[in-house]
Amino acid sequence: MRISELSRRSGVPVATIKYYLREELLPAGVATSATQAEYDDHHLRRLRLARALIAVRGLSVSTTREVLRALDEHSTDLHLLFGLALGAVVPTDEPDSPSDQPQEPTPADELISALGWEISEKAPTRATITDTIHTLRELGLPADWQTLVPYARLAERTADLDLAQLEDAEDPLERVERAVLLTILLEPVLLALRRMAQENESAKRHPRPDTGPDTD
Amino acid sequence: MRISELSRRSGVPVATIKYYLREELLPAGVATSATQAEYDDHHLRRLRLARALIAVRGLSVSTTREVLRALDEHSTDLHLLFGLALGAVVPTDEPDSPSDQPQEPTPADELISALGWEISEKAPTRATITDTIHTLRELGLPADWQTLVPYARLAERTADLDLAQLEDAEDPLERVERAVLLTILLEPVLLALRRMAQENESAKRHPRPDTGPDTD
Repeated sequence: MRISELSRRSGVPVATIKYYLREELLPAGVATSATQAEYDDHHLRRLRLARALIAVRGLSVSTTREVLRALDEHSTDLHLLFGLALGAVVPTDEPDSPSDQPQEPTPADELISALGWEISEKAPTRATITDTIHTLRELGLPADWQTLVPYARLAERTADLDLAQLEDAEDPLERVERAVLLTILLEPVLLALRRMAQENESAKRHPRPDTGPDTD
Repeated sequence: MRISELSRRSGVPVATIKYYLREELLPAGVATSATQAEYDDHHLRRLRLARALIAVRGLSVSTTREVLRALDEHSTDLHLLFGLALGAVVPTDEPDSPSDQPQEPTPADELISALGWEISEKAPTRATITDTIHTLRELGLPADWQTLVPYARLAERTADLDLAQLEDAEDPLERVERAVLLTILLEPVLLALRRMAQENESAKRHPRPDTGPDTD
């Protein structure tokens, strides 16, 4: 297809597509003349993915380029791809190895070990866990890694739902793209669902007598 | 206590405390001389809360002031407080009422109705749900409100965990402050747990033969 049809089918303006091409977010089309090129469904899918990462999720162009490049280079290693796409892993040729000096385990280390999870040593999510536990404690709230175990068990079931959504995608690349989209785009939805569930649960526990429908 | 002790116990610099006082995030202390004032545990707790909302969660000073003011004015209505503190509800004297013109139900409306949840008509979380479903569809992913039902059921159980953490706080104001902190501060943790659970589940389903400990 021409760039105009690519624009029409993706909803992305031609000027933006040209910008993505210059920034190497999108591979070049097959040149059919000095000024025209032909694009295919791979370009369309890649364009939608880039657009979602940038416009919907607010990733920078350079981060998006890294994510897309990683998808290209590692498309047979689904586990690594998940990590790359989710920002959990920095690409490296070395296998994960613990630091030379033995260190005191962090709350995140203890949590992951208690759960029996297999998680990259370099995952930035580890710092998120540890930092938040420290912050909660500084604020005088009772919180330690044990507090998070039941949350983690629910997260396992959420991840099962996530992975189940990928099963009907046959192409591995499509599966990974879908994984990235689902993971990133569902994040605000999951937080919204939790807040609504809190509101609903709170309404059940603390009924407001002055706003009910009955006025007898 | 003097402002210096308030600073020491909260870990917030004196200059920041003075700024919060000027911005009315913190009520004035009881003046003991022309240049000194006395603060109590209420100030300490309020200071920690303001600090967490601003420095940890990145809320603006004016949003933080609104949240804190709402806590002061509605401290007996736990349900409303939850909504205010979580940004789910805009304070108003009118009860929720549906719009005059009947409108096509959005995906969020259908989801909430199917779940049987009691949620404010004005909750911005509704738009989050609807917008994301539209985005996923535009990207070619199969998604509708039914997709979210099992996620919502897990969110209910997460909210149960959240509310259970509040039960040992006796003072209602302390309970609400704790609710705000737990809800807001745990958000990045819950997303981190989901990403790690995906990584772990993905590792189980797609083992990487070249990085295992055995090399036979």
